[in-house]
Amino acid sequence: MDIATIIGTLLGFIVVIGAIVAGGGAGMFFHIPSLAITMGGMLCATLIHFSLPQFLGIFSVIKKTIVAKIPPQSELVQKMVNYAAINRRDGALALEQEISKISDLFFVKALQMLVDGQESEEIRETMSLEIQHLQDRHSNGKKILEFMGASAPAFGMIGTLIGLVQMLRSLESPEKIGAGMAVALLTTFYGAFAANLIFIPLAGKLGIYSKAETTAKEMITEGICAVARGDNPTAVREKMQAFVSQSKREEVKANI
Amino acid sequence: MDIATIIGTLLGFIVVIGAIVAGGGAGMFFHIPSLAITMGGMLCATLIHFSLPQFLGIFSVIKKTIVAKIPPQSELVQKMVNYAAINRRDGALALEQEISKISDLFFVKALQMLVDGQESEEIRETMSLEIQHLQDRHSNGKKILEFMGASAPAFGMIGTLIGLVQMLRSLESPEKIGAGMAVALLTTFYGAFAANLIFIPLAGKLGIYSKAETTAKEMITEGICAVARGDNPTAVREKMQAFVSQSKREEVKANI
Amino acid sequence: MDIATIIGTLLGFIVVIGAIVAGGGAGMFFHIPSLAITMGGMLCATLIHFSLPQFLGIFSVIKKTIVAKIPPQSELVQKMVNYAAINRRDGALALEQEISKISDLFFVKALQMLVDGQESEEIRETMSLEIQHLQDRHSNGKKILEFMGASAPAFGMIGTLIGLVQMLRSLESPEKIGAGMAVALLTTFYGAFAANLIFIPLAGKLGIYSKAETTAKEMITEGICAVARGDNPTAVREKMQAFVSQSKREEVKANI
Amino acid sequence: MDIATIIGTLLGFIVVIGAIVAGGGAGMFFHIPSLAITMGGMLCATLIHFSLPQFLGIFSVIKKTIVAKIPPQSELVQKMVNYAAINRRDGALALEQEISKISDLFFVKALQMLVDGQESEEIRETMSLEIQHLQDRHSNGKKILEFMGASAPAFGMIGTLIGLVQMLRSLESPEKIGAGMAVALLTTFYGAFAANLIFIPLAGKLGIYSKAETTAKEMITEGICAVARGDNPTAVREKMQAFVSQSKREEVKANI
Amino acid sequence: MDIATIIGTLLGFIVVIGAIVAGGGAGMFFHIPSLAITMGGMLCATLIHFSLPQFLGIFSVIKKTIVAKIPPQSELVQKMVNYAAINRRDGALALEQEISKISDLFFVKALQMLVDGQESEEIRETMSLEIQHLQDRHSNGKKILEFMGASAPAFGMIGTLIGLVQMLRSLESPEKIGAGMAVALLTTFYGAFAANLIFIPLAGKLGIYSKAETTAKEMITEGICAVARGDNPTAVREKMQAFVSQSKREEVKANI
Repeated sequence: MDIATIIGTLLGFIVVIGAIVAGGGAGMFFHIPSLAITMGGMLCATLIHFSLPQFLGIFSVIKKTIVAKIPPQSELVQKMVNYAAINRRDGALALEQEISKISDLFFVKALQMLVDGQESEEIRETMSLEIQHLQDRHSNGKKILEFMGASAPAFGMIGTLIGLVQMLRSLESPEKIGAGMAVALLTTFYGAFAANLIFIPLAGKLGIYSKAETTAKEMITEGICAVARGDNPTAVREKMQAFVSQSKREEVKANI
Repeated sequence: MDIATIIGTLLGFIVVIGAIVAGGGAGMFFHIPSLAITMGGMLCATLIHFSLPQFLGIFSVIKKTIVAKIPPQSELVQKMVNYAAINRRDGALALEQEISKISDLFFVKALQMLVDGQESEEIRETMSLEIQHLQDRHSNGKKILEFMGASAPAFGMIGTLIGLVQMLRSLESPEKIGAGMAVALLTTFYGAFAANLIFIPLAGKLGIYSKAETTAKEMITEGICAVARGDNPTAVREKMQAFVSQSKREEVKANI
Repeated sequence: MDIATIIGTLLGFIVVIGAIVAGGGAGMFFHIPSLAITMGGMLCATLIHFSLPQFLGIFSVIKKTIVAKIPPQSELVQKMVNYAAINRRDGALALEQEISKISDLFFVKALQMLVDGQESEEIRETMSLEIQHLQDRHSNGKKILEFMGASAPAFGMIGTLIGLVQMLRSLESPEKIGAGMAVALLTTFYGAFAANLIFIPLAGKLGIYSKAETTAKEMITEGICAVARGDNPTAVREKMQAFVSQSKREEVKANI
Repeated sequence: MDIATIIGTLLGFIVVIGAIVAGGGAGMFFHIPSLAITMGGMLCATLIHFSLPQFLGIFSVIKKTIVAKIPPQSELVQKMVNYAAINRRDGALALEQEISKISDLFFVKALQMLVDGQESEEIRETMSLEIQHLQDRHSNGKKILEFMGASAPAFGMIGTLIGLVQMLRSLESPEKIGAGMAVALLTTFYGAFAANLIFIPLAGKLGIYSKAETTAKEMITEGICAVARGDNPTAVREKMQAFVSQSKREEVKANI
Repeated sequence: MDIATIIGTLLGFIVVIGAIVAGGGAGMFFHIPSLAITMGGMLCATLIHFSLPQFLGIFSVIKKTIVAKIPPQSELVQKMVNYAAINRRDGALALEQEISKISDLFFVKALQMLVDGQESEEIRETMSLEIQHLQDRHSNGKKILEFMGASAPAFGMIGTLIGLVQMLRSLESPEKIGAGMAVALLTTFYGAFAANLIFIPLAGKLGIYSKAETTAKEMITEGICAVARGDNPTAVREKMQAFVSQSKREEVKANI
């Protein structure tokens, strides 16, 4: 669960809506046709740019970014050290009961391969391919969000141009000029708001999340491979600690 | 047939035209001279930038992007496994009758080379060169579309500047100001609309299509080469599955 | 002779001038002081950016881009195959009479080296250095045109700012506002027009021309080197065909 | 202590506030709601983009950039030469008393490893990892500041759009137009000011500081490793001088 | 002495000042507070971005770019051929009297090392490091100028925003609107002018100068190293000519 994303989004909406309400007349900022052209145009352009499966996959990627929990690195180190100890004492088969304690499917698969007695190299190859596909999905989601972040202000501008042309044509009734321009500017506002508070920061978060998850998956792969090679707990710990920043390293002992 | 491109384009036009009609007076948004300067200027700049054959080739590239069907990866895997089985049982010549079942010229050529008894390395070399030329054509089309996407708003702005200068000169008749500015803004609208709904997303789709088609062609090359080397169906299947994302792999058996 | 550049430039001027004339009062779009500040400022900035020889060389590079004719690839293949046949039958000296039939100085030089009995490696080294210098000249010309394309709109904006300040100072005579602003906007129009119809597309064309000419020069180098090594016509043809896209390859036989 | 950052920031504020005060009515430039939407929106977008620890870490990184003192290169050379002399005369253990004279934790750690009798390669490996983590922290801080520099003007524009819409709606009271637009423009002013005087230059300074600190840390690592290998003072000096620009090299002798 | 820079700057000022004077009332374009905020803000941002020594070093780098004379390549070839002849006839010591004829410190140092009897490899190593530091200084100066070119228009916009807010607040006196806006726009004019006529082109010139000077220094290093190895004049000439574009090569003979 990524707290920062949720806090940032909530606070961002509060700040902007607060500024709107403080100025009086929040109602005029909610205009369905303006919303339709900005968001509709942006979604259509995104549909043209990407393929249907890519487009539909973006929602699950975003959801995972916010909801998914990346295990702390120290926890992974601890687990691998334990597995190494169990493996040396009771053999790989004894690790079978550990599988049920894990919820991450990637981790389960790696551990299952270990229990099934597969070679270290086979495990690494299979899991590396999985990591590769994970990164592809993430980088794909990032590209879609970045395109949305560039497309939303563009369609906001298109909406404003339409509004301006319509307003200028009916210049005979000057009392309508202000209202017409206010509505015309709404689409630019929607586009800028959606891009700068939602799409662009979310694309950035996806990149940071992707890096963190990839590192975790690489730690799991590295650890399971070391256990599969029959390394002793100390050697496994050393291998795992190389991933951890010096200031965050903790004393880890096999704890089984 | 790429559904997303067609849906996106149709919906995009509906959304924008809907917003125009809803505002009343759709007629004033259709102005031939404005359209002529925006699109004409953009096309002229594109002609100067690229050579005539490149410019004329863009239409067939776009058409192919929307119409062409990339075979599902599982289908390619299945076919190669079958070919391997036929090849091992009856020899390469027995594959001749398979050629007539294929419509993709690239695939036909690779299979013909196999039937003709060419070496694996020769097939790979010839087909790799073909893939190289395919990518060149795609990347060329992408560059043209991207240039159009940058050029259309620029000529939209040039048209608006011309309209503004003309409008400002006749400022003595204030009742014409609004109409003049409305017309002047139309070119900016045309440029922004064409760039953001058509050219930029289409350039993106071309990139994604190019990647998918290249992968398919590489799978065909890899598979035909494996068959040409006389690999057994299981080995061919393994080679082909490496291209397929883990979650999409299906059980494949020779089916002849 | 590059038709596309000439057609594009002519049509582009026709489209823009047509839009101006159609709006009435084309005369007001021709304003020497505005033209002076936009183009003069741009040329001065270009002079500061580049050295005098680079700046003066740009005109010959542009001229060559439009006028120079790159020989068709099939013609080059045919020639090299003929040379190989002559070389095998009568020796390199017999090629001397071919030199007078060629107008391209690069080609003449390579052929002369061959006739003079220089080694294949020497020819390749000398001609590669020539190609390197050619590419430097082209990439230099491209950079100058791109800088002009970025500088012209900037000085257009500077001219408009000057015009706006002057117009705003004399706001007491409101009837002059429109005319003043119209003139102020002219420099922005000049800058945008020159950049988007001339400099930016021409820089692009220079890049495409450079690539085509480099390929032709590399084909010549490769072919002459093969002849110098005494390769037979068939081997020379194979080497040359590797440069030609599959769909454009023609049956070539020594034709002497 | 980086004087330039402090002078630049102070002078920048003086220049801008001076221009505001000179124009009369500085009070109108201080508007809490405008400040809230620009800075609040920017901070929220930054929170969404980055993770909470990264976001909170930015302040200590900035502080360190301004406050931290990078030792002069000549001082480092002198120290390493002294250490080499002490090491050769009295052994590594004699260097223990030097540790207390150093305040930089990185330097302390490297020296401690040397005193503990670790091998040159072990020291290099450990310290290189530390440098890597240092660079990661710096590049992370730079990215956050750059994002803030891009986000602040965007939220300034969003604030101005909100203000414009509100102002245009109440166009019936024309005497309020000026005041409304003045307030609306304030957010754009805040965003441009914060980005161009604070965030963008600070991101640049962080990059320059990072390069300088990395070089210092690499000099320490290189020097300690040389001492650990038992190099004589002259050899150590030569190794260290390679980092120093020729014009800044000073005569250095062991001084113990 | 780089003529193009001086001509470009002078003509640029003449063109812009001419346009101002032609429009009447040049005095209003000279406004100290506007100049102070644009240039002052830009300088402060540059101070924050770079360190004090880097900032102060920019002036000497610019001066050298305009004033320094890069010796013609043919002159360098001639000199090296002469040195080779002298070295072969009278030994390296006889070159001592040549040192006094050279003003370039880099050249003097290289020649001194040769006279001192240093090995070719030592000379190359020392001089390469010097070239490296030279390039660092140049690229640093280029970065500062580019940042100034980006910062000046930004502070021009900030100044305009301040002016607009002040003008809009005093909208009650409509006769002041024009004058207020004219002054407000001046800072944008200053920023655009300084960036596009001074900073951006000067950064470009620095890059081109850097490349030319680096090539000259590399020719000197290469030549002195060849002489130090005792190569004969012909071999030295060949080595030097490789740096010279074919069309500029001249017949060179030892001339002592």
